[in-house]
Amino acid sequence: LSGRVITLTTDFGVGSPYLASMKGVMLTLNPDAVIVDVTHGIAPQDVREAALVIEDVTRRFPADSIHVVVVDPGVGTDRELIYAHLGHGHYIAPDNGVLSFLARRTPPTMVRSLKEPSYWLPEISATFHGRDVMAPVAAHLSLGLDPRELGPEKDDLVMLPWKAPLRRTREVRGEIVWVDGFGNVVSNITARDLADVPQDGPLRITCCEHVVDALSRTYGDHPKGALIALIGSSGYLELATVGGSASRTLNAVIGDRVILGW
Amino acid sequence: LSGRVITLTTDFGVGSPYLASMKGVMLTLNPDAVIVDVTHGIAPQDVREAALVIEDVTRRFPADSIHVVVVDPGVGTDRELIYAHLGHGHYIAPDNGVLSFLARRTPPTMVRSLKEPSYWLPEISATFHGRDVMAPVAAHLSLGLDPRELGPEKDDLVMLPWKAPLRRTREVRGEIVWVDGFGNVVSNITARDLADVPQDGPLRITCCEHVVDALSRTYGDHPKGALIALIGSSGYLELATVGGSASRTLNAVIGDRVILGW
Amino acid sequence: LSGRVITLTTDFGVGSPYLASMKGVMLTLNPDAVIVDVTHGIAPQDVREAALVIEDVTRRFPADSIHVVVVDPGVGTDRELIYAHLGHGHYIAPDNGVLSFLARRTPPTMVRSLKEPSYWLPEISATFHGRDVMAPVAAHLSLGLDPRELGPEKDDLVMLPWKAPLRRTREVRGEIVWVDGFGNVVSNITARDLADVPQDGPLRITCCEHVVDALSRTYGDHPKGALIALIGSSGYLELATVGGSASRTLNAVIGDRVILGW
Repeated sequence: LSGRVITLTTDFGVGSPYLASMKGVMLTLNPDAVIVDVTHGIAPQDVREAALVIEDVTRRFPADSIHVVVVDPGVGTDRELIYAHLGHGHYIAPDNGVLSFLARRTPPTMVRSLKEPSYWLPEISATFHGRDVMAPVAAHLSLGLDPRELGPEKDDLVMLPWKAPLRRTREVRGEIVWVDGFGNVVSNITARDLADVPQDGPLRITCCEHVVDALSRTYGDHPKGALIALIGSSGYLELATVGGSASRTLNAVIGDRVILGW
Repeated sequence: LSGRVITLTTDFGVGSPYLASMKGVMLTLNPDAVIVDVTHGIAPQDVREAALVIEDVTRRFPADSIHVVVVDPGVGTDRELIYAHLGHGHYIAPDNGVLSFLARRTPPTMVRSLKEPSYWLPEISATFHGRDVMAPVAAHLSLGLDPRELGPEKDDLVMLPWKAPLRRTREVRGEIVWVDGFGNVVSNITARDLADVPQDGPLRITCCEHVVDALSRTYGDHPKGALIALIGSSGYLELATVGGSASRTLNAVIGDRVILGW
Repeated sequence: LSGRVITLTTDFGVGSPYLASMKGVMLTLNPDAVIVDVTHGIAPQDVREAALVIEDVTRRFPADSIHVVVVDPGVGTDRELIYAHLGHGHYIAPDNGVLSFLARRTPPTMVRSLKEPSYWLPEISATFHGRDVMAPVAAHLSLGLDPRELGPEKDDLVMLPWKAPLRRTREVRGEIVWVDGFGNVVSNITARDLADVPQDGPLRITCCEHVVDALSRTYGDHPKGALIALIGSSGYLELATVGGSASRTLNAVIGDRVILGW
């Protein structure tokens, strides 16, 4: 373990001073830790949104980075806190499914249950395990602690259901899984699902009673206000309103159907 | 002074570019400073909120960290800017009470008035002493400057009144002092105030015409929407709505009474 | 090039996880980069606001800092991405005018078109050049890459029109160019434009049918709620409501006229 980067993903809200408590705990143990915020704007207790962000963002970080995820509606119940080695990163999170989309892509090579209190703060509150357990464990890992010291091995992770798009004849039926900060509407249909679509043939993307009849390469080719469909920067089919918000144009919410036909 | 960590607490708002000006000034003087945001979401000019956050969060940071607090409604008047050594940290702030809750807990061992312009920027604006005075002073401290060089000694700090809860027979009367980003409603009643409460006896917590009749250990034990009372992660009695916002449930604001009876 | 500081200015919104993707890319290439957020609260695609922030803030940073600006409505069109050496900093940005207010102050000493893909990510999306092109280029510069390697020389930058205030007899006519997070209303009239105003003579600042008849030094000298005019910390004439928001007091928006008479 050589990584000194520790990332934080929480639902605390962007201005929350609770984050700083976690950072203080980590810097006290390892003054050389490089702490990076992934986001603190996850909707409160929205494990699914956090799982999508973790999958897309954390694999961009250096090998052996330590990723701490505090979206933890079950804090203080018997849900477990875990360590998982996934892809080229180390993850500290509640075992509530928040790592499951990443694990679907790259199954874990080691999972441990955080049971060894030597690596926690001396006093543990019932409501803030991010500060009292996860932050000090991450700092110890960043100092080179062998993750096997953290607690007993676990065989599996809680997995959220991933709704794969349905493939029919000349059609793929997916749904909206995320709306980003610009209002772009991201579906679960990937570039790969489009492999069967003829290169220059007609195409139809339907969502919330709006129809888009082409796949664009990018935003800038279109007039302001145009509703377009494209493969976004994370590899998923998304709908966007040029210079605006597709989620407002469509009045769309997560779970709404997206149908690609040709 | 070996600390390289400098923390920032302001009321500038989370997206404010003014923060970056302060960071630029500090990094120009000390490129090795590790700058950490505590929060920039303090309500504008709310010295009391900042004093509560400072008390809870900054003691989590490494010994000899330098904490800069820019909540400064009196900028440009004759209010003083000060250096204070409090607990194991160094503080740079206006002398407006923002350090007083921390000083109540651990009285200062040194207070200096920032009067020595050698450690300021060459040009001082009338409205942004955070950038022009506090940031360069913090950077000089992080480089090892003896705080006695900053200006003459001061004997006291401006102190905000701390409203201690009232203890009556079988009752403690406190009030709401803070509402966090989740809408949890935090009172000034501490775990210690509950020492007289019989372990298994009946209990009644009243706030804004709502009554809670038990002290919970944590959120996760209850159904979504339940209003509960618990000792929060900072050691104060707080009210929380599971999976929601107690401040909305109660329609509560800072200053509203919280009564604990048994 | 010895600078290790990389700053980020974007319109992604403060909680956006897209920022973290950029930081992950940069830290993967240069684990010692010191990444500082300038702001991510630029109004979506508002190149003019970003240009004002860049001009005011980035010159506070250490010499040889690398400033990355991702306010890029033309992503995926034929707008160019550029490197520019301006003042004592290095800038990576789309060539859309976002550097023009800074360039007006200190003309560029070198401009390069980012054409050399060796310094980009291996896979380039059509919609997120901040992550795929600008972040890796900034990281390579922070490692010491000669900017001449980035691509061919360019002779000029796209410049936004700068509306200079009009000087009439005993009058300067300017306009609102920015509203900061406190609601302070910042004009394009500078301290220098006030050189002709007699020191102790009468003065009149008119904006949105409100009149202020003196220039204040700072906020704290006035009662709460007072509308005042002063030279702000960036050197421009601004209107402020003490303890409140001048933009609300005045119902003012960017482009509204500010007239200084004497």
